[in-house]
Amino acid sequence: MPLAANPVDAIWPDRPSAPKAKAVTHPTQLAGLSVGEKMALLAADLAEGKADAAILSDPASLAWAFNLRGRDIPHVPVALGFAVLRHEGLSRIYLPQSKFAAEALDALKPFALLRPRAQLIPDLLAMASDGLRIAADPGTTPEAIIAALRKAGVTPVAMRDPVILRRACKHPVEQEGARVAHLRDGAAMATFLAWLDSRTPGTVDEIAAVKKLEAIRRANAAASGSRLEDVSFPSISGSGPNGAIIHYRVTEATNRVLGAGELFLIDSGAQYLDGTTDITRTIAIGTPTDEMARAYTLVLKGLVAISRARFPAGTRGVDLDVLARRALWEAGLDYAHGTGHGVGSFLSVHEGPQSLSKRGMEPLKTGMILSNEPGYYRPGAFGIRIENLIVVEEPRLPDGGEIPTHGFETLTLCPFDRRLIATGLLDRAELQWIDAYHARVADALGGLVRPAVARWLKRTCAPLPRRKIRLRRLDKV
Amino acid sequence: MPLAANPVDAIWPDRPSAPKAKAVTHPTQLAGLSVGEKMALLAADLAEGKADAAILSDPASLAWAFNLRGRDIPHVPVALGFAVLRHEGLSRIYLPQSKFAAEALDALKPFALLRPRAQLIPDLLAMASDGLRIAADPGTTPEAIIAALRKAGVTPVAMRDPVILRRACKHPVEQEGARVAHLRDGAAMATFLAWLDSRTPGTVDEIAAVKKLEAIRRANAAASGSRLEDVSFPSISGSGPNGAIIHYRVTEATNRVLGAGELFLIDSGAQYLDGTTDITRTIAIGTPTDEMARAYTLVLKGLVAISRARFPAGTRGVDLDVLARRALWEAGLDYAHGTGHGVGSFLSVHEGPQSLSKRGMEPLKTGMILSNEPGYYRPGAFGIRIENLIVVEEPRLPDGGEIPTHGFETLTLCPFDRRLIATGLLDRAELQWIDAYHARVADALGGLVRPAVARWLKRTCAPLPRRKIRLRRLDKV
Repeated sequence: MPLAANPVDAIWPDRPSAPKAKAVTHPTQLAGLSVGEKMALLAADLAEGKADAAILSDPASLAWAFNLRGRDIPHVPVALGFAVLRHEGLSRIYLPQSKFAAEALDALKPFALLRPRAQLIPDLLAMASDGLRIAADPGTTPEAIIAALRKAGVTPVAMRDPVILRRACKHPVEQEGARVAHLRDGAAMATFLAWLDSRTPGTVDEIAAVKKLEAIRRANAAASGSRLEDVSFPSISGSGPNGAIIHYRVTEATNRVLGAGELFLIDSGAQYLDGTTDITRTIAIGTPTDEMARAYTLVLKGLVAISRARFPAGTRGVDLDVLARRALWEAGLDYAHGTGHGVGSFLSVHEGPQSLSKRGMEPLKTGMILSNEPGYYRPGAFGIRIENLIVVEEPRLPDGGEIPTHGFETLTLCPFDRRLIATGLLDRAELQWIDAYHARVADALGGLVRPAVARWLKRTCAPLPRRKIRLRRLDKV
Repeated sequence: MPLAANPVDAIWPDRPSAPKAKAVTHPTQLAGLSVGEKMALLAADLAEGKADAAILSDPASLAWAFNLRGRDIPHVPVALGFAVLRHEGLSRIYLPQSKFAAEALDALKPFALLRPRAQLIPDLLAMASDGLRIAADPGTTPEAIIAALRKAGVTPVAMRDPVILRRACKHPVEQEGARVAHLRDGAAMATFLAWLDSRTPGTVDEIAAVKKLEAIRRANAAASGSRLEDVSFPSISGSGPNGAIIHYRVTEATNRVLGAGELFLIDSGAQYLDGTTDITRTIAIGTPTDEMARAYTLVLKGLVAISRARFPAGTRGVDLDVLARRALWEAGLDYAHGTGHGVGSFLSVHEGPQSLSKRGMEPLKTGMILSNEPGYYRPGAFGIRIENLIVVEEPRLPDGGEIPTHGFETLTLCPFDRRLIATGLLDRAELQWIDAYHARVADALGGLVRPAVARWLKRTCAPLPRRKIRLRRLDKV
C-alpha cells in the first residue's frame, strides 16, 4: 500500500536537503542523437504501444531522453526527477528551474516544460481527462502514482519504459566514445598494474592500492585532455581472503596488506564524459600456487568463450551464460553471480535490460554494452574475477554461412596476469585469442603510457609459451 | 469456450468406434516401483500441493501411475482414459472393465475404482462437496472439465500433474531397462547400417530402407528373447533433398533412391517392454563432398558437447542448448528445432517436462532421459541429424571440485559415419570422446551381432585418424 509520507523520514532527523547540483547538457557529439531525434523515436515507440504519454520514473531514462547529466548521487551522473514523455506537444520534466545550468534550460525549451514535482499526478490526471492514454512501466513506476491514477479511474497502459531498450543499444557515436574511454582507462590500468608489479610484495595494502589507482586515473585523464568525472562505483580491492567476498568494500578495519603468494582482486571503473568503464583484474602478488593458476585459467577460459561467441539475432543472455561456466563446471566449480550486466554510456554502470545470466531473457542487440566477468571464489583463501566490457557487434554473414551472426567486440584494454595462466589448460583457439588480445592491448596502449610502462606492457603482452606438443598417434599422418 | 459435442464429429461419419484393446499390467520388475509405492509418492505430492485429489488427463500419466500399458493408439502404449488420484482412499479410473486384461483388473483393485467416463464430473463435484480440494493441471486438463467445476462453484487448485516429474525421473530399474533396450536396438541398427554399407549406391530406396530396418529390429528382438512391440514413431527416411525436410515421412509419391554422393538421414525408434528408443544417423551413400563432411562434423561437435557437459543441480535445458549450436553458429549455420526432448520408459517417445531447448525451463534431474539431436538442413540438397538418447547421471564431485555436477550417460549405441567426420575440425577432447564412444559401441555390440557385422563394427569403430600436427611456436618448450 502506498503511503503519503515515507516512514523512514520520522527517524531521519538529519536527512540532508535535496541535492542542489545543476544538470548540464550531454552534448549530441557524445550522445549521437539530439534531443529532437530522441523525442521523435520515443514518440514512435509510444504510438506503437498505443499510448499518448509515458511516465519516466528512472532518472537514467530522463537523462538519456533529454541528453542531461546531473550530480545528484555518487557515481551515477543523473538528476533525480520524473518526466512524462508526450507523443505530441511538449514533454514534462518535474524538476525546478534551479536544478539546471542555463545552457541546459535553453536546450530543453523546444522539447519539455518544467513543472513542480507536486504537479505530476494532477498533470497526468489532466492528460487522462483530455483523452490521452498514459503508459506506466509496471517495473519502475512507484506504486503511489499507479494508485493515484486508479483512484481517479485512470487505468495506465502497462508498457516498458520506452527509453530502456533505446538507451541500451548504444549509438555508433556512443560506441566510439566507449572505445576512446577504454583506451584512456586501459592506459591508467596498465600504469597501475606496472606500478604494482614494481612493488615488493607486502608493501602495499588494499586502501593504498585503490588510492593509487584513482590518482593514476585522475592524472592520466587530465594528461589526455579528459577528466575523471567520478569512479563508476566504489572500488573493490581485496587481497587474499578478502578477494573471495564478492561485494567487498575495503574499510580501515578490514584493510589487508597484499602479501606474497596471495591473489589481489581489483574491480573498479571510471565515469568519463565519453563513456563508463568497469574492469576487474586479479593479480598474483609474488609467486602464485598451481591451484591459483588452475582456477584463474578456468575463469579465463569462460571470459574467452564469451568473447569469441557468435550468435544469431534473438539470442538472449540466458542462451550464452553457460559458455562462461562450462570449464568451471567441468571442474566442479562455479560462481554465485551473473556473468554480465549492461553498462550505460556515461550513465549507470548497471543498466538493463541486457544481462548475461540465467535470468537474461532479453535478446541481445547491436550496440548493447555488457560486462563479461566470470569468477571463482574460495572463501577464506582467495577470489578471482576477470572482467572486460564488450559490445554487441552488427550481425555479419560468415564465409559459407547462411545466418548472419552477432559477435562481441571487447572494449576493455588491459593485460591479464600471465603468471596465472596455465597454458596447458587452454586449447589452441583460446591461446590464439589471448595472444591476439594481448597484442592489441600492447599496440593500443603502448603510445599512451610512459616508456617504462610501455616496456612492461610489451613484456606482459608477449605471446604465451606453448607447452611441448606430445607426438602421439601419428599412425595416419 | 467448451462445447458439449465435438463439431468434428458432424463431418466424420465413418469415425471408428472406441479402441477395444485391453490394457495390461506393466510389471514392477520393469517399472521399478509398484502401484502401491507410486500411490504413496503421489499422495505425498498431493499433500505438498495442498490438494486431496488430482485429475489425470494425460493417458501417459494414468499408464505410469497405475503401471498399465495399452494399445489404443499407434506407437504410444497407453489406454485412453482419465483418472482421479486421491490422497486418501481409492483413486478412480474412468474406463470400463472390458478395457482391462483380467490380471490388470486384479492388480488395480487395491488402488482404484473403475468408473464410467460419464461419472467423472459428478464424482469430482461429489468430492468437492465432501470438502476435498481438487487439483487440475492448467496445461493438460480439458477446458470442459474446468468449466463444469467452476459452474458448480468449485475452484480447482492449479497444480502440475504430479505424475509428470516423477515419470520423467526414471527409476534405476527403468534406467537399467533402457540400457538393455539400447543394446538390443544398437545391434539392430548396426546390422542395418552394415547391410546398407554393403549395397551398391542407387539400389536401395527410402521405403525399402525403412522396411529392412523394421524387419531387422523385429528379428533381432525375437532372437534376443524380446519383442518389437511397435516402432516408437513413423520412421523418417530421407535421402538427398528429402533429408532436409525435418518431419519428412516417406510415401510412394516421394520415395527416392539413395543415390551415390548423397546423404541419407534415418530417424527411427522402437518400443520394447524395457524401454523406448529414438535414434538418428546420417549416412554417406558413396563418397560425400567436403561440404557435407564439414556440416556433419559441426553437427557432431554439438552432439559431443552435450554428451560431455557437466552441470550443477538446478541447471535447465535452456542453460545447455547453446553447447549444441556453438560450432554451427560460429559457421553461420543453425537448426530450427530444439536440441532434445524427453523420452518415456515404454511410453511416449516425446515426454515432458524436460527439454534441451531455448524453452527448456525445467531443471534437469537424475534419471531424466532426453534426446541429444542437433542437425543441419540445406533445403533442396541434404539434411543432417545425429541423435543419441542420454540420461542424466547422479551428481558427483569431481577431484578437487566443490560442487557435485551431473553429466549425461549416453544410452544409444551405434557408430557415427566415419567417412563424414572431418577430423581437422575436432579438438583433442572431441576426438577422444568419439573414439571412446566408438570403442564402447564395438565392445558392447560385437557379441550381439553376426560375425560379419561384428567385423564391420570393428572397422567402423576404429580410432579416427589424427591430422598431422604442425609444429609451431615451440620457442618455450
